[in-house]
Amino acid sequence: MAQPQQSEGAEKPPLRVGMVGYAFMGAAHSQGWRTVGRVFDLPRQPVLSAICGRDPAAVRAAAERHGWAAAETDWRALIARDDVDLVDICTPGDSHAEIAVAALAAGKHVLCEKPLANTVEEAAVMAQAAEEAYGRGKLAMVGFNYRRLPATALARNMVAEGRLGKLRHVRVTYLQDWLGDPEFPLTWRLRKEHAGSGSLGDLGAHIIDLAQYLAGERLAGVSALTETFVRERPLPVGATSGLSAVTSAGTGQVTVDDAALFTGRFTSGALASFEATRYATGRKNALRIELNGERGSLAFDLERLNELSYHDGTEPAAHAGFRRILVTEPDHPYLDAWWPPGHGLGYEHSFVHQARDLVHAVAEGRRPEPSFTDGLQIQRVLAAVEESAEKNSVYTPIAV
Amino acid sequence: MAQPQQSEGAEKPPLRVGMVGYAFMGAAHSQGWRTVGRVFDLPRQPVLSAICGRDPAAVRAAAERHGWAAAETDWRALIARDDVDLVDICTPGDSHAEIAVAALAAGKHVLCEKPLANTVEEAAVMAQAAEEAYGRGKLAMVGFNYRRLPATALARNMVAEGRLGKLRHVRVTYLQDWLGDPEFPLTWRLRKEHAGSGSLGDLGAHIIDLAQYLAGERLAGVSALTETFVRERPLPVGATSGLSAVTSAGTGQVTVDDAALFTGRFTSGALASFEATRYATGRKNALRIELNGERGSLAFDLERLNELSYHDGTEPAAHAGFRRILVTEPDHPYLDAWWPPGHGLGYEHSFVHQARDLVHAVAEGRRPEPSFTDGLQIQRVLAAVEESAEKNSVYTPIAV
Amino acid sequence: MAQPQQSEGAEKPPLRVGMVGYAFMGAAHSQGWRTVGRVFDLPRQPVLSAICGRDPAAVRAAAERHGWAAAETDWRALIARDDVDLVDICTPGDSHAEIAVAALAAGKHVLCEKPLANTVEEAAVMAQAAEEAYGRGKLAMVGFNYRRLPATALARNMVAEGRLGKLRHVRVTYLQDWLGDPEFPLTWRLRKEHAGSGSLGDLGAHIIDLAQYLAGERLAGVSALTETFVRERPLPVGATSGLSAVTSAGTGQVTVDDAALFTGRFTSGALASFEATRYATGRKNALRIELNGERGSLAFDLERLNELSYHDGTEPAAHAGFRRILVTEPDHPYLDAWWPPGHGLGYEHSFVHQARDLVHAVAEGRRPEPSFTDGLQIQRVLAAVEESAEKNSVYTPIAV
Amino acid sequence: MAQPQQSEGAEKPPLRVGMVGYAFMGAAHSQGWRTVGRVFDLPRQPVLSAICGRDPAAVRAAAERHGWAAAETDWRALIARDDVDLVDICTPGDSHAEIAVAALAAGKHVLCEKPLANTVEEAAVMAQAAEEAYGRGKLAMVGFNYRRLPATALARNMVAEGRLGKLRHVRVTYLQDWLGDPEFPLTWRLRKEHAGSGSLGDLGAHIIDLAQYLAGERLAGVSALTETFVRERPLPVGATSGLSAVTSAGTGQVTVDDAALFTGRFTSGALASFEATRYATGRKNALRIELNGERGSLAFDLERLNELSYHDGTEPAAHAGFRRILVTEPDHPYLDAWWPPGHGLGYEHSFVHQARDLVHAVAEGRRPEPSFTDGLQIQRVLAAVEESAEKNSVYTPIAV
Repeated sequence: MAQPQQSEGAEKPPLRVGMVGYAFMGAAHSQGWRTVGRVFDLPRQPVLSAICGRDPAAVRAAAERHGWAAAETDWRALIARDDVDLVDICTPGDSHAEIAVAALAAGKHVLCEKPLANTVEEAAVMAQAAEEAYGRGKLAMVGFNYRRLPATALARNMVAEGRLGKLRHVRVTYLQDWLGDPEFPLTWRLRKEHAGSGSLGDLGAHIIDLAQYLAGERLAGVSALTETFVRERPLPVGATSGLSAVTSAGTGQVTVDDAALFTGRFTSGALASFEATRYATGRKNALRIELNGERGSLAFDLERLNELSYHDGTEPAAHAGFRRILVTEPDHPYLDAWWPPGHGLGYEHSFVHQARDLVHAVAEGRRPEPSFTDGLQIQRVLAAVEESAEKNSVYTPIAV
Repeated sequence: MAQPQQSEGAEKPPLRVGMVGYAFMGAAHSQGWRTVGRVFDLPRQPVLSAICGRDPAAVRAAAERHGWAAAETDWRALIARDDVDLVDICTPGDSHAEIAVAALAAGKHVLCEKPLANTVEEAAVMAQAAEEAYGRGKLAMVGFNYRRLPATALARNMVAEGRLGKLRHVRVTYLQDWLGDPEFPLTWRLRKEHAGSGSLGDLGAHIIDLAQYLAGERLAGVSALTETFVRERPLPVGATSGLSAVTSAGTGQVTVDDAALFTGRFTSGALASFEATRYATGRKNALRIELNGERGSLAFDLERLNELSYHDGTEPAAHAGFRRILVTEPDHPYLDAWWPPGHGLGYEHSFVHQARDLVHAVAEGRRPEPSFTDGLQIQRVLAAVEESAEKNSVYTPIAV
Repeated sequence: MAQPQQSEGAEKPPLRVGMVGYAFMGAAHSQGWRTVGRVFDLPRQPVLSAICGRDPAAVRAAAERHGWAAAETDWRALIARDDVDLVDICTPGDSHAEIAVAALAAGKHVLCEKPLANTVEEAAVMAQAAEEAYGRGKLAMVGFNYRRLPATALARNMVAEGRLGKLRHVRVTYLQDWLGDPEFPLTWRLRKEHAGSGSLGDLGAHIIDLAQYLAGERLAGVSALTETFVRERPLPVGATSGLSAVTSAGTGQVTVDDAALFTGRFTSGALASFEATRYATGRKNALRIELNGERGSLAFDLERLNELSYHDGTEPAAHAGFRRILVTEPDHPYLDAWWPPGHGLGYEHSFVHQARDLVHAVAEGRRPEPSFTDGLQIQRVLAAVEESAEKNSVYTPIAV
Repeated sequence: MAQPQQSEGAEKPPLRVGMVGYAFMGAAHSQGWRTVGRVFDLPRQPVLSAICGRDPAAVRAAAERHGWAAAETDWRALIARDDVDLVDICTPGDSHAEIAVAALAAGKHVLCEKPLANTVEEAAVMAQAAEEAYGRGKLAMVGFNYRRLPATALARNMVAEGRLGKLRHVRVTYLQDWLGDPEFPLTWRLRKEHAGSGSLGDLGAHIIDLAQYLAGERLAGVSALTETFVRERPLPVGATSGLSAVTSAGTGQVTVDDAALFTGRFTSGALASFEATRYATGRKNALRIELNGERGSLAFDLERLNELSYHDGTEPAAHAGFRRILVTEPDHPYLDAWWPPGHGLGYEHSFVHQARDLVHAVAEGRRPEPSFTDGLQIQRVLAAVEESAEKNSVYTPIAV
């Protein structure tokens, strides 16, 4: 079994992490924890103490592969360990609430993958638990990692500086295509009991968070359509990562949405449109967001994550235009620690930066963002989307 | 006063055009009529017989500028002329119905700018008149010129060939920014009594038509939000083109929408989203449409009108990707008459092609598309959008 | 036979044009002359008096198609006509000198297609003739039409304003692919006796002119490689446009270059690279130019001719980036006469603008640019390229 | 001091690495060695045994930061260590030969940063040493990391499959802009005694290697221009990374080229053009390469490193176009070990992949590519470029 990575210096206290889950998100979070202290100057040094999963052989292999010092098969044992300061929850949404609440109760900090939970009720319990834990000095954060890309962080800064002026429009899509094939198997991501919802909770949660984060304000209400294009799919055989599996002869019912479209109003009166789908043939990870304000506009595409498009509406028309900012300068968020200009980062770096920001928050006792309360609010938006879709798309206010 | 352009050959019968209106659309249509016979081999030769406008000096100047042989100040006089076979209506929407019905009754063919009318009722009367005129051999067409670009015509062909397979998604935006400045004056385009609606009828009508045309099917229902961001604007002084004017000290109420967002379902079950706005800072003419089907996807952007983006979903993943078809080949629609590959066309060519298609239809006695019945259906979509927006965005079926 | 287009107003004197040649360039120039007075306010009104070609039936058909009042089969007759003020030469390069010199001697203004001639000697004679004619009030211009696009004209203005600062690099390619197929026939464009050279004179002349025009300075010397990849091609049968033909069983020698690459120094010390080829599979009309200066950069691509890319190097790194200026604003060159923002122009508009600029020059008695002397200098660059290529690429100064 | 990362499994033999240098390249290589075993299934497990640098405190800090178990201040001590199987040389070019030859003589495998050396003579010695070491089972590789991006590796595969057919053109630029400011200090990269050459050896070496690698053939000769735009620069104070430094009042001579342009011929007769510069304002890392063959074309831009552009020239013209392959599929090179489609990689991943390929070569006793002999050939191209530039750009064959 692998040894944990050590603290860099004797004077720097460790932040000992225990992680639950070891699939796609587990690998990405591991890469984040393993790398962050090699790149950033941190007040505490992350240590990969223990990883947890139900299959003993698989979790041991994951520990070795990803560099975790120990492996557990029961998340209760993981959160009971003395050598764990922070629990990182990378499981499907149906187990988030139970694990997070118990971990906070056990005096651990918690990082929980998005969406925070599968229901508003679970999320509310978690937010309450986080609030109480904060009183005891324990922090909780939701893993909306797309806030942590240099380009999105720069966009947030530019909005906050007033470069867009009064906001008029936000339009966001998150387009993937891995369900286009009707023979794709019925993995856990397509079953309501595990995933809560389909593209809505998976992709929609990301774009709701990113839209509100960049806009610096919240949605007031939504009007929604959802659809399940393919209602029956082959059953998977054996282990499945959620995103791939071998199929069997049998079939089962898809119980989540394939696509969700919704429009909405921000509290300021700005209009928003959202689309999340897994059926956009040829679009692999097309999270695209554009914000139009009275003074300027910003646009971002996750498939070109090192770029931010910016239009300065205050320039003379003769020379104005959307500019492609290559977000790779030392002046850009997170980038003084990385490579020279033009040497771009990748998807996984969002997890390195997420770890960086959380380590700083923990070391400073500062409530990290997005908090569980933020996660609860997004859950309320998701619930309003589902309610509107059920009620003939009627405009549905977001509960406060 | 200018002479009309003559027929090219004695054997080719003329098609004598009379046009009502001489602002932006009048100039564009004039360019179309003047050029089409110089580029395409036509069965009849268009002749620019007479142009009509209320201001005697202005219409005479327009006639000279654009090459019309005569000028009229009363549209009733224009449609009464013996030397007019076809009436081309380029006025604001509030006068379409009266002129078109009268012109058809007078035995003229009619080309009417979009949207067909300001209300469903007017459009229904027009469609009925067109139906009756067709029995008398007279044709009526609506001027949805964006169908006539090589790239959109190619896209239509590719959808019709089955290259997209079962359609899943259509997403369309038409983004402009000329109202971003709150000091922009209250031209006729911002007044309901003339324009019928705002971005909805102006931009929304275009994208509804284009979406249905490319999809090859119709919308079944919509859910909509509309908004007027700036409700009071300076009054214009003197003549106004709709798109520009000098302003006075007084102000008036904007009585149309500034932006319209709607989602919908096609009759096949495919999902659609639409956005029309004049507040998207930096977007000048961003009519963007993407269609995703089970087997492929297409995307088009009017700001790059010589290009069509196509993803063939049946190719091996290792070599698949959205390809940029430079739609300038002789094999592409309309292009065997123009320049060598790579020598692109512009916006105005859509009017040349519109004229070409209409001349062929007239010569062959074939009902042109989009017909007034098609225009009526789009008016019903516009009405459903307005109804849904008034009724809290509730999903509103399109009347058949 | 068609009637000429008339002057718009009695008070506006005509400028009566006679054109020699009616193939690709003839069609493009006709479109320019026919349209310019419909769009721009001109001091003189172009009239399409007569067109000339050797084949009587073909030239009559071209006259009808393109709107010329008369047809001639001998260019000497054309330049002798009283109703011709300006001779527009659209023939292959081997006849430019003879026609232009005779036309100037006959007291006509002359517009001559590029390249000015097939040899430096011919060009020198033409430049001398132009100089003498200027003393008699007659003007001569070379048809480097790519200077007349709004985007390139804007680029020139921005360089002249000092936005690039000290120039360091100019890199230009002109990539086409119509010779990629070895079965493409041996048209006149592939025969030295008619075309003078291959991609060098056809494409290279364009990019030399554009590079020097945008840079605002001239090349001091070049080092060159040229190549003929396919040395034998099928002979064409019957008429050929230069760009297409039916082929016969026989073959003939290609006597011009297929591709030309050269590097060079501007007089200021800036470095330049050029590439002209007809073998760049998939590139249809990729004239791409980029200029890098100490303070900024500009880039243009003819396949997206309504756009100019600009980097302002004086901006803070955090917000700097290449911006895509959509060159469709009324503030942009030529565009106050055209459509609203975002409604792009096409290739042929360069000829409308060329006609506009020449009409103004004639009316004002101002020497137009590029002059025959400018055309001679470009011929000298072409000759230096050929000389360098023959002499093992040795750096070859441009004769002054 | 940090502990080394351990082997994953007892059965997997370690590959113990010692690295010389710890600046930009040292950090990048460390990231590669640290990560590769966490992502790929390797036959041997890399262990970060020792790092070497002249400054004792700095190298200790680098060891801690980057995860190396030990630190040395003398490279001779490093290569003498028993716990080092492979020496990774990340120093400036003037020390490559001495270290590499000694390391190979000491029975170590060697990875050497590019360019292989500062002169042909040094490179020849190194290639000879590598050849002899290969007889003793020790391997040597040059670090041309841009071969290891999924997109470039895919491009190589596609060329090798014959998708381009007969090659006609290769055009490559490597554009940066960090010397545009004349106040940028005189770091070691601007001094011939350390760097050998300027943009030529730094950027030019990369593009020569990539062009030859993708083309699958070698350059036969070149014709070149080089230039030093700013000949005197402020001296740096204290430590400098090569890419940044604090400046002093004094100045010194720049003794390397600022920019290098060259054209050339491949052995097959295909033409090539190259440009390397640090003065292309706004271009940060614009390594752009395009290959045109009779049957197709490929294009790549390092600023968008997850994409490859491909034109299939055998498709019907009506549907052909450059397609943007998002190189993030499990079917693409290196990517079955990484994230789901659309989740892009970054610059540093090239070093992870370089480590992966080298570990496999070592485990299999296979001669890795690019070999020192390949590096020597590139050195000969660089020398021919310099010779041509000195000799008035005359075409200069590459020595074999």
